[in-house]
Amino acid sequence: MNAETKGEATKQHLIDVGSMLFYKQGYNNTGLSQILKEASVTKGSFYFHFDDKETFAIAIIDFYMKMFRDLSKQHLNNDSLTPTEKIAAFHHFYLNLFKQQDYTCGCPIGNFGQELGGLNPEFSKKLAIAFNGMVFTLSQVISEGVLSGEFKATNDIEALAGFIVDSWEGALVRMKTIRSSQPLENWFVFTKQLLLNE
Amino acid sequence: MNAETKGEATKQHLIDVGSMLFYKQGYNNTGLSQILKEASVTKGSFYFHFDDKETFAIAIIDFYMKMFRDLSKQHLNNDSLTPTEKIAAFHHFYLNLFKQQDYTCGCPIGNFGQELGGLNPEFSKKLAIAFNGMVFTLSQVISEGVLSGEFKATNDIEALAGFIVDSWEGALVRMKTIRSSQPLENWFVFTKQLLLNE
Repeated sequence: MNAETKGEATKQHLIDVGSMLFYKQGYNNTGLSQILKEASVTKGSFYFHFDDKETFAIAIIDFYMKMFRDLSKQHLNNDSLTPTEKIAAFHHFYLNLFKQQDYTCGCPIGNFGQELGGLNPEFSKKLAIAFNGMVFTLSQVISEGVLSGEFKATNDIEALAGFIVDSWEGALVRMKTIRSSQPLENWFVFTKQLLLNE
Repeated sequence: MNAETKGEATKQHLIDVGSMLFYKQGYNNTGLSQILKEASVTKGSFYFHFDDKETFAIAIIDFYMKMFRDLSKQHLNNDSLTPTEKIAAFHHFYLNLFKQQDYTCGCPIGNFGQELGGLNPEFSKKLAIAFNGMVFTLSQVISEGVLSGEFKATNDIEALAGFIVDSWEGALVRMKTIRSSQPLENWFVFTKQLLLNE
């Protein structure tokens, strides 16, 4: 492995470790020293790749966004599924993931938004892009469902997608709080009610 | 002022100051030293009233709950309003409040839930009670609206109230992130669509 490849591997390793710590503990609750310790990376090496903890967190939001896009191929962007099946696959995919975490973690973008959205304009900008990406992905599924007649016709697909994404994020807050799938199951019932043409 | 009254006043002053700091900055982002400094209270006096920062935060959740109940008399629990007017008054009351804060703060219960719900069982228990209180208050308005015929009949009023509370909490996460009333305005459109019999 040459120096450049090794450097990139270290950078990615820091992102892998940091993304999990931020996800599980929150941004402010996670110190740089813990990240360095768990990654077994020196402070010098960290600062070679990132200006500070904030720059690091921005890179991690990019990482979360890429992860969401990649995982969406299994549900919202899975071309082998109908629009109704895409929504169901999305729901069950995340329900299963959150269950494995004993309902303690939720959505990394929502967590960052709640913790930092109001505090730091740089985070706000990046998180707004991340939310828009989720809304856009869902809008495409809704458009497809409206066209196929599976979903109700609607005046403003993006507004509906925004509402559904928001209600999912809110359900995750309550899911974490009561450590139960109930708010997510409830979300699925009402999301189907809002979407399905039946 | 006797010693007991003075002690209670100090305790309440700490809660007033702490509740604003936690609300604006988050729990983990607010150190005890800042609370003491802004309240001009000594460490000894703090520990006379509270075992630790966590016990203090639990008292602050109680304070937020009482505030929500008191403020609800202006909207959801305002007996001079119809159910539809109660929902609208709730929406406009908080929209106005959040606007004054430049959309940076959101709901203190939702903030705590997002930041701490998954981390600390004591917080979870207390926050679950707080969420249930919100859902219960909204359920009563929905029941009233269904009875009067203003709202659509529904199988499970509590589930619908839970979904509406969750979607409001989620809208607040995005509101904070994009610093705009748009997610809340959007919430109001779809909440009316879910509730109103028209």
